[in-house]
Amino acid sequence: MTLRFGVVGTGAIGREHIQRITNTLSGGEVVAVTDINQESARNVVHQFQLNANVYPDDKSLIADTSVDAILVTSWGPAHQATVLAAIEAGKYVFCEKPLATTAEGALSIVEAEVKHGRRLVQVGFMRRYDRGYVKLKEAIDSHEFGAPLMLHCAHRNPEVGEQYTLEMAVNDTLIHEIDVLHWLVNDDYTSIRAIFPRKTKYALSHMQDPQIFILETVGGIVITVEVFVNCKYGYDIQCEVVCEEGTMRLPEVPSIISRKDAKLSTEVLTDWKQRFIDAYDNEIQDFIDAIRKTGQPQGPTAWDGYIAAVTSDAGIRSQQTLEKEPIQLCNKPDFYNH
Amino acid sequence: MTLRFGVVGTGAIGREHIQRITNTLSGGEVVAVTDINQESARNVVHQFQLNANVYPDDKSLIADTSVDAILVTSWGPAHQATVLAAIEAGKYVFCEKPLATTAEGALSIVEAEVKHGRRLVQVGFMRRYDRGYVKLKEAIDSHEFGAPLMLHCAHRNPEVGEQYTLEMAVNDTLIHEIDVLHWLVNDDYTSIRAIFPRKTKYALSHMQDPQIFILETVGGIVITVEVFVNCKYGYDIQCEVVCEEGTMRLPEVPSIISRKDAKLSTEVLTDWKQRFIDAYDNEIQDFIDAIRKTGQPQGPTAWDGYIAAVTSDAGIRSQQTLEKEPIQLCNKPDFYNH
Amino acid sequence: MTLRFGVVGTGAIGREHIQRITNTLSGGEVVAVTDINQESARNVVHQFQLNANVYPDDKSLIADTSVDAILVTSWGPAHQATVLAAIEAGKYVFCEKPLATTAEGALSIVEAEVKHGRRLVQVGFMRRYDRGYVKLKEAIDSHEFGAPLMLHCAHRNPEVGEQYTLEMAVNDTLIHEIDVLHWLVNDDYTSIRAIFPRKTKYALSHMQDPQIFILETVGGIVITVEVFVNCKYGYDIQCEVVCEEGTMRLPEVPSIISRKDAKLSTEVLTDWKQRFIDAYDNEIQDFIDAIRKTGQPQGPTAWDGYIAAVTSDAGIRSQQTLEKEPIQLCNKPDFYNH
Amino acid sequence: MTLRFGVVGTGAIGREHIQRITNTLSGGEVVAVTDINQESARNVVHQFQLNANVYPDDKSLIADTSVDAILVTSWGPAHQATVLAAIEAGKYVFCEKPLATTAEGALSIVEAEVKHGRRLVQVGFMRRYDRGYVKLKEAIDSHEFGAPLMLHCAHRNPEVGEQYTLEMAVNDTLIHEIDVLHWLVNDDYTSIRAIFPRKTKYALSHMQDPQIFILETVGGIVITVEVFVNCKYGYDIQCEVVCEEGTMRLPEVPSIISRKDAKLSTEVLTDWKQRFIDAYDNEIQDFIDAIRKTGQPQGPTAWDGYIAAVTSDAGIRSQQTLEKEPIQLCNKPDFYNH
Repeated sequence: MTLRFGVVGTGAIGREHIQRITNTLSGGEVVAVTDINQESARNVVHQFQLNANVYPDDKSLIADTSVDAILVTSWGPAHQATVLAAIEAGKYVFCEKPLATTAEGALSIVEAEVKHGRRLVQVGFMRRYDRGYVKLKEAIDSHEFGAPLMLHCAHRNPEVGEQYTLEMAVNDTLIHEIDVLHWLVNDDYTSIRAIFPRKTKYALSHMQDPQIFILETVGGIVITVEVFVNCKYGYDIQCEVVCEEGTMRLPEVPSIISRKDAKLSTEVLTDWKQRFIDAYDNEIQDFIDAIRKTGQPQGPTAWDGYIAAVTSDAGIRSQQTLEKEPIQLCNKPDFYNH
Repeated sequence: MTLRFGVVGTGAIGREHIQRITNTLSGGEVVAVTDINQESARNVVHQFQLNANVYPDDKSLIADTSVDAILVTSWGPAHQATVLAAIEAGKYVFCEKPLATTAEGALSIVEAEVKHGRRLVQVGFMRRYDRGYVKLKEAIDSHEFGAPLMLHCAHRNPEVGEQYTLEMAVNDTLIHEIDVLHWLVNDDYTSIRAIFPRKTKYALSHMQDPQIFILETVGGIVITVEVFVNCKYGYDIQCEVVCEEGTMRLPEVPSIISRKDAKLSTEVLTDWKQRFIDAYDNEIQDFIDAIRKTGQPQGPTAWDGYIAAVTSDAGIRSQQTLEKEPIQLCNKPDFYNH
Repeated sequence: MTLRFGVVGTGAIGREHIQRITNTLSGGEVVAVTDINQESARNVVHQFQLNANVYPDDKSLIADTSVDAILVTSWGPAHQATVLAAIEAGKYVFCEKPLATTAEGALSIVEAEVKHGRRLVQVGFMRRYDRGYVKLKEAIDSHEFGAPLMLHCAHRNPEVGEQYTLEMAVNDTLIHEIDVLHWLVNDDYTSIRAIFPRKTKYALSHMQDPQIFILETVGGIVITVEVFVNCKYGYDIQCEVVCEEGTMRLPEVPSIISRKDAKLSTEVLTDWKQRFIDAYDNEIQDFIDAIRKTGQPQGPTAWDGYIAAVTSDAGIRSQQTLEKEPIQLCNKPDFYNH
Repeated sequence: MTLRFGVVGTGAIGREHIQRITNTLSGGEVVAVTDINQESARNVVHQFQLNANVYPDDKSLIADTSVDAILVTSWGPAHQATVLAAIEAGKYVFCEKPLATTAEGALSIVEAEVKHGRRLVQVGFMRRYDRGYVKLKEAIDSHEFGAPLMLHCAHRNPEVGEQYTLEMAVNDTLIHEIDVLHWLVNDDYTSIRAIFPRKTKYALSHMQDPQIFILETVGGIVITVEVFVNCKYGYDIQCEVVCEEGTMRLPEVPSIISRKDAKLSTEVLTDWKQRFIDAYDNEIQDFIDAIRKTGQPQGPTAWDGYIAAVTSDAGIRSQQTLEKEPIQLCNKPDFYNH
């Protein structure tokens, strides 16, 4: 059985996923596309030589009985409605982050899925499929290092464009740490606090850059995350887990080791796409494989999307107050404690 | 167009390739299998739920008009005949190493392919598809480091079984360096010399272990390769290229970086399959993609298989003489200088 | 001219300094010793075969006209009186940390030295003499990396004894970071906040361990310091400086690089004495050399001792309040802006 | 007791040793100097404010009864006569490499010392005092890694001047590996072979550069040493020891770790003096300390100087023949097997 995708949104990220489903991964096929820009949707069919129908909107695409799974790669504010419609139709959904732009929106999806009674939704938090994070999690879960006590993380981009806003430091950048770190330590957040260091001279005038966030968990773990989006030198994701018996860090991105001009050096990536390229492949392949084998996706859930939304809201509040802002989740449906 | 494979040999390596074509890669399908052990062939069809015919022998499998490409994963001594039959039938061939067990056999395949007039054959030297070697080659070809002068390499296995012979150190182990290194530096070998250091206490009684090989090239590059098949600590492949302006080394295999028990450490692999798992995927995907896009494979050629056979023979002679043994190739057909 | 030392306090650290002055360094000699335990003082003379007088107390030792410099290695609470007496006598002083146990005490030393009109005092903050920190400072001062924005530091001990108190995490452990970091970035602290993560199971029952401290500077630099005194795995000092153009970290302690038992590893120290052994040598040698060449010490000043005391007090307050505690220094005498 | 040095030869290396004895080390003093350039000798006394006599030649300096130890830092061909004269006078000698320019010369010193009946001579092979090599030796001697089987070494200089000759690659450059490696593995050499790879474009026209040397030992250890004196990128000394249970390498020279311009890098030295600066200090301090404590030096012996001379001669022969040249030592006097 091939998993037949209908793609909603044929912009950059949509095309990348179409490319990997079509030319790299196994067991999936794109059979329908739509975009508010219909020209874009038609071009994609041609570009990738798809045997796919072009639909005027998400509703009609979802209604296509040959479509098994909806890939949501449209503009963020449009995600919620498409995901709800897909659940309504009982179709699988792979939704790029954010699941919804508000906590309420995310919660409405959780409720719809619970009501449906079976997992349909996976959120596009690809870091959980990165080998480094997977190895960190295995090591934590092995208890070989004892309980995790602190995490020291950094999320650095070489630079961002003029359209980047203060809030995006949380809901577009930090959001990846928000998702992956609670998964990593099997814990829930209780608070977040923003701290604003001295601004880099490369910061956009309307922006604070870098920023530091302190997250705390129910179990008392303290997490420091540096978010630095004009760090100039490269795209660099760091994560150190300090446990009772020792520490663990993400591997450096592998690169040839050169000695030249009085330097012993390896390369640091500058393009974020390279950093998680395998993780992107793995998350979609896992989505396909899990559905084919078990009838439901196994990756990040709608509930994870809700956690991200609530935490993100608190982080944005703290950017205003610079106080410790509480993070309060509603009760987790048993549905997600499988 | 899906590339339809007929698989000759359904042992361990055959099953791995069937697994990746079926469940991991894109654009290929296994439609026919055969094995001298027919039970094994039938089991594979069942195990991977293939929609594939089981044939009594390679000849009948090759004759199946629904088969586009022959995957040769049988016992080494059987490779040559199958490859020649496939060429005769004008079918693509992906042949695991060795292409043939003698230089003459490899040359007969070269001649058959030249006569056919178009590339059909790719040899399974997967290291050329390893990201580390690819990056080394890019760096060498960029001339940023000047001309390569020396290579220092090591091929270390944790241990080998009783069936491992002195000759296998060359034709089963060193063979990978033999192929990848001349490709890396765009040069041909002129000689090889074996040196036997003190034996490790873990050496099999009939074996010399470790061994050192010195290869020299037409351009004067000197290559030292340590082959150490009972090194105990892990599976470890090292390659340092010393150029006029600097040096480059293969990356270490990425691993989380831990601090524990007074050690700062990363993991060394012990299972060779893990080391080149991506390279195995990449070589078959490239074979599929190149044929689909260009009508012929782009990977290691029958000529490369011939080079490996001639060099391997000289290496085995030097294990007896401990002298510098010349490596003489016949004239390279223009066919392979595309 | 040999610099003739009188040593006040012949306990462990006193003996180490006597050992290095006598057997390792150049240009110094121990000519007088005292200790509240007179037996200890006499033993030291014998142990190191010193040609030195044993005095009943610091006053009489300071009065010895053959003594050029007082080395204060007594119990912390006794430092202030000895240093003031030495200044009164116009003698050089090398005082182990703390300069005084209160900010007021440190300030009284500053005032005495200013009144004297010439530098006499150096405080034993040896990290400024560690090659790694020196290299970091050179890189910062070169402006090659732009302005420093954030520092991420860790101070980890394998374990501490029962006598270790919550306050000591600040005034005995963090104190080293307090001194070296403001020197490193040429800036003054404005606040400190303690954060208490989940306790390690190895924490003493009366202790919080680990702890995190956030320091901020006049220039807006934000410094995170993890203090973890039962980290088990080793003695490990980390410091990463994040600047506008890039980042820099302390080197790892050099160690042979081994591959064994499926690990690629280097050693982590477990004994703190090993970590800064060269720095200890360097600070005393510099004290000797600077006085011999320029007539006054060039290392950490009484003012630095005062900064450490004020910051330490604020850190201890924050351990109680878990709030951001302000750090307010009185006006810096011009005397210290040479 | 202070060890009183008479220095024969006040050129660059002589001045460095005078500087360290006078201003860095403990327990030594320069009380006499001589140089064939008397002006140079007088200048040194003034430059370092020595309280030292200037002598017209080595003989008169050795005769000075206030001189305990002769530091031989003259031109290489002059070493032998001075050392023999010092032994004749029963004085300690620290002799820079080479001990003598011929194997016969070195042997005559061995014989003179044996006749004297007590160790007087130490040869300036400073690498044995480098922390990295010391740690390697400790690890080898601990037998934790099993027996050493192979060593892979590199000796790289950024560049050499026009006066550098083919032979100097052996007797001035490789000589350091020759000495330190047999000490490291507690073994004697049996042969050496030179291999000439492709020349770098930076090689002097009269020179072969790089060169590879293969040394073998009585115990069967095979040692590969790359000597590359115009490697451009830095001064870099590498040594990997491959044992039965694992491998060990020299640490990289510690340096701050920076991330900038898409590179993660550490510094490689370009000035050889920096590389072994601590080792130079340590060898002279050990010479002083050992004599003061035990009445004789404990460092590299005249016999080690003889081994270096014999091995060097064989290496130079192999540069001509490119054959494996035997290394034959006369019987080792029991005197050196303490």
